[in-house]
Amino acid sequence: MERRFRLVLACPDRVGIVAMVSNFISSHGGSISDANQHSDPSTGWFFMRVEIRAKSLSFSLEELKNAFAPIAQSFNMRWEIHDSERPKKVILMASRESHCLADLLYRYHEGELDCEIPCVISNHDDLRSMVEWHNIPYFHVPVDKANKAEHFSRVSELIHEHEADSVVLARYMQILPSDVCEQYQHRIINIHHSFLPSFAGAKPYHQAHERGVKLIGATCHYVTEDLDAGPIIDQDVIRISHQDQPEDMVRLGRDVEKTVLARGLRWHLQDRILVQGNKTVVFN
Amino acid sequence: MERRFRLVLACPDRVGIVAMVSNFISSHGGSISDANQHSDPSTGWFFMRVEIRAKSLSFSLEELKNAFAPIAQSFNMRWEIHDSERPKKVILMASRESHCLADLLYRYHEGELDCEIPCVISNHDDLRSMVEWHNIPYFHVPVDKANKAEHFSRVSELIHEHEADSVVLARYMQILPSDVCEQYQHRIINIHHSFLPSFAGAKPYHQAHERGVKLIGATCHYVTEDLDAGPIIDQDVIRISHQDQPEDMVRLGRDVEKTVLARGLRWHLQDRILVQGNKTVVFN
Amino acid sequence: MERRFRLVLACPDRVGIVAMVSNFISSHGGSISDANQHSDPSTGWFFMRVEIRAKSLSFSLEELKNAFAPIAQSFNMRWEIHDSERPKKVILMASRESHCLADLLYRYHEGELDCEIPCVISNHDDLRSMVEWHNIPYFHVPVDKANKAEHFSRVSELIHEHEADSVVLARYMQILPSDVCEQYQHRIINIHHSFLPSFAGAKPYHQAHERGVKLIGATCHYVTEDLDAGPIIDQDVIRISHQDQPEDMVRLGRDVEKTVLARGLRWHLQDRILVQGNKTVVFN
Amino acid sequence: MERRFRLVLACPDRVGIVAMVSNFISSHGGSISDANQHSDPSTGWFFMRVEIRAKSLSFSLEELKNAFAPIAQSFNMRWEIHDSERPKKVILMASRESHCLADLLYRYHEGELDCEIPCVISNHDDLRSMVEWHNIPYFHVPVDKANKAEHFSRVSELIHEHEADSVVLARYMQILPSDVCEQYQHRIINIHHSFLPSFAGAKPYHQAHERGVKLIGATCHYVTEDLDAGPIIDQDVIRISHQDQPEDMVRLGRDVEKTVLARGLRWHLQDRILVQGNKTVVFN
Repeated sequence: MERRFRLVLACPDRVGIVAMVSNFISSHGGSISDANQHSDPSTGWFFMRVEIRAKSLSFSLEELKNAFAPIAQSFNMRWEIHDSERPKKVILMASRESHCLADLLYRYHEGELDCEIPCVISNHDDLRSMVEWHNIPYFHVPVDKANKAEHFSRVSELIHEHEADSVVLARYMQILPSDVCEQYQHRIINIHHSFLPSFAGAKPYHQAHERGVKLIGATCHYVTEDLDAGPIIDQDVIRISHQDQPEDMVRLGRDVEKTVLARGLRWHLQDRILVQGNKTVVFN
Repeated sequence: MERRFRLVLACPDRVGIVAMVSNFISSHGGSISDANQHSDPSTGWFFMRVEIRAKSLSFSLEELKNAFAPIAQSFNMRWEIHDSERPKKVILMASRESHCLADLLYRYHEGELDCEIPCVISNHDDLRSMVEWHNIPYFHVPVDKANKAEHFSRVSELIHEHEADSVVLARYMQILPSDVCEQYQHRIINIHHSFLPSFAGAKPYHQAHERGVKLIGATCHYVTEDLDAGPIIDQDVIRISHQDQPEDMVRLGRDVEKTVLARGLRWHLQDRILVQGNKTVVFN
Repeated sequence: MERRFRLVLACPDRVGIVAMVSNFISSHGGSISDANQHSDPSTGWFFMRVEIRAKSLSFSLEELKNAFAPIAQSFNMRWEIHDSERPKKVILMASRESHCLADLLYRYHEGELDCEIPCVISNHDDLRSMVEWHNIPYFHVPVDKANKAEHFSRVSELIHEHEADSVVLARYMQILPSDVCEQYQHRIINIHHSFLPSFAGAKPYHQAHERGVKLIGATCHYVTEDLDAGPIIDQDVIRISHQDQPEDMVRLGRDVEKTVLARGLRWHLQDRILVQGNKTVVFN
Repeated sequence: MERRFRLVLACPDRVGIVAMVSNFISSHGGSISDANQHSDPSTGWFFMRVEIRAKSLSFSLEELKNAFAPIAQSFNMRWEIHDSERPKKVILMASRESHCLADLLYRYHEGELDCEIPCVISNHDDLRSMVEWHNIPYFHVPVDKANKAEHFSRVSELIHEHEADSVVLARYMQILPSDVCEQYQHRIINIHHSFLPSFAGAKPYHQAHERGVKLIGATCHYVTEDLDAGPIIDQDVIRISHQDQPEDMVRLGRDVEKTVLARGLRWHLQDRILVQGNKTVVFN
């Protein structure tokens, strides 16, 4: 894939934003390969994502940022420019359940996920061999009720050491401390095995079985301090019947969890997700 | 469609139920056109539905019931036998929103719903012309905060007068009194415009918009005393995006509500739904 | 809904199109409420749709067209500007099957379809009462093998007399003559009851049953001279099983046909569909 | 999972089959854990699958077969009884594309697929390391235009040597010789990357892109002599848009292929698929 610069921005809506941005780009010879806008009537905010073919510009990434800054300021934009050739560094965290981790590793292996994976962290040692087959370092950081603080301190350390841009909780079953959530705001992705807001918390498939729902689902969201309550990135469902016991739901749900998490991560890596309050704009 | 007797039963599971039932049928020359069983491992109950071609039996419906009663007793069955030529009498109740009512009337008109509709009851007069085009009596029973008791008394009266077997709340936005719920247990079907248990109660699409979910849904369930908490018959969802405002969700959701309600009612009319506690077994 | 002007355009891709168009709009104070672009790498073409809040411009529709024409010319654009307050005139054609017609009439009645329906034309008289309940004129134009030319001549006449912008074949089972197809290129919408290109032609549900597929579908497309081969607008499917006979497929398929046709027509009415060769770009 | 005997049968429909079969089972104290029947009105055939808890019978598998044979004969049944503790031996064949193979191996590893995998055969050596990580022998049997006969002779040999019950073509891109197809009738499963019968043959995603369809799919079917024309086991689809190029379809389609193939294989392993002519009855 040809190199791209990705400009994403959000600002109060008003006349002329698209004109100003597209003018800026075309005045420097920039060729736009993809563009999306969204005006949110309920908040009055405007969101935009533009992919520019890097070779059509004479700018470096830094020069592009400097040149765009005055425009951004005049419109009070929150904004970022990303370079497709500097893929994000994503640390995967898992526990004992392997399906989401195995799926992400496979997609990474096949080139579906444009990122680096500096390491995998788990509170169990079970998945080491699978991870190491992919030549990715595996850190086993055990946790129990007594050593939670120590565990998270080591986890934080590993995240910092590996200069992670983002963290994926691929069925990592621990609740992150709020300082980590804040520090990596909108950069920690979790997969929850229910169609949120139904069945937040523990054992959602058992809750679903108890209630007798006819579809089960999975939700990929950014992690916030509030358990399973962060901005939703994507969701999907699968049909079940009265024949399905909780263990069948666990099996059927795995396919939904894998797909939803992989899709959400892919969008995140391509800077397609803009967060507004507790909701997301996804330009997919 | 050829005449059928439909035997539905539930009892504690044990060896020989299917043999006993199918023997009983075949010993009288009965030809089975459809059969389903379900053993529920979590409760130890067994559920069965058998369709018998009526003309293969020399029995009348009453004789069939009498002949089957001893078997039923020996297995402690809850059971019913229905005659496909005595379609259920179903009263539809609506408020101002017409989509579910219009859809059911259309399907009835086309022969998709095997029932009689003795009348439609509404707390508004808006949908009279649509209903009367179908040659179905329309009863306008207004309701306000002051006359709730009177309203429900008149509604009950109409249900009794028309000898309704079942009632469908086709976006009838009032909460039925608990004595009506009890009297017509597992015979009042409601459509709720959310994917329950998410967003029970009022304005579910607005709740969904507020939470930022990526799919919206509808749930068809039997009405119990507890609002939106009865046994779920069917559910479905439709994908939305950040572009969809609550009014778009209302529009998109209508198609899901219509489909889910029609499917649930069809199964109910064909005696395909067996209730177990607060859950359903649906032989579809 | 507030008045909008909708600009849709297609031209060979090059640097600066979005800048030129958005500049043009903003230089006249135009406020953009919705915008989509698409660059097609396989053909090198660029497609765009912009909705402008009419009251933000001091232009009339005609003045807007005149002002935009030079830009359009310089980029070799195919383009149109539509006024949301001049809804399209759409003639519905049907045969005996009522489900698609009934569904469109209901949605029109509820305000979901922003169009005028000057009349319904059918080769049977069966659906007259349903149509006339909506206060829409109904023209019964019979057809048989002997009078095809006469039939189509009368149909063409009716289309002209009513100044139709578009025609919807809502399960109208006749093949239109090629001169009509050409004259209303990309303005005649058909619903075919299969997942094209599978099962084109007659009795697709029977073909599907014969082949033993596990999903059946429907396809909404613009009509061309080649039967069931025009540009596809939308498609959808529904799951079936070995239990479903052709008549069950007919019943189940109806829901898919209705939804797909209504969705395609809605997009057409909102000028969201751009045709490129035998394919469509749908900005939804 | 507790040991089960699975009886599957097909015969001309007549009164008393279920009674005879269930009587036979219950007269020996057999406890039925799952049962399905299907009467096909278009062919007049009857299909049945019964799971019996093995420990409820005093029979061995052989004794059970001997005891059932006279009943089977009197009803002209095609029938089989399988023992859940003798899982099928399934050889996987692949080429260079790894997604289906990796997915099946993962599910096998996790215990989702109740089978033995004696080996993997491929005409390339690319996937050796992935397969050997699972401790499964990998046979690289190259093929080119000149050595097809030799290739297939070696493949047949390997299938025989490993006493395979079934073969899965997990994106193995060669056409099997008809003698192999015949010898393993209804025991070779292929995944084709289109929604058959659309886009049979080579490069289906490119065909789909060319035609401009709005959904792409995958089909799992038993292999027959006729390319991509055997009895369909399962199908599914995924939505695409005008933005998706053939390479996007390849990526998106992989998820559908994997899911459909795994589901079909799982049903095959559980003896849930009965073939009737060129169609399948799937008791799932």
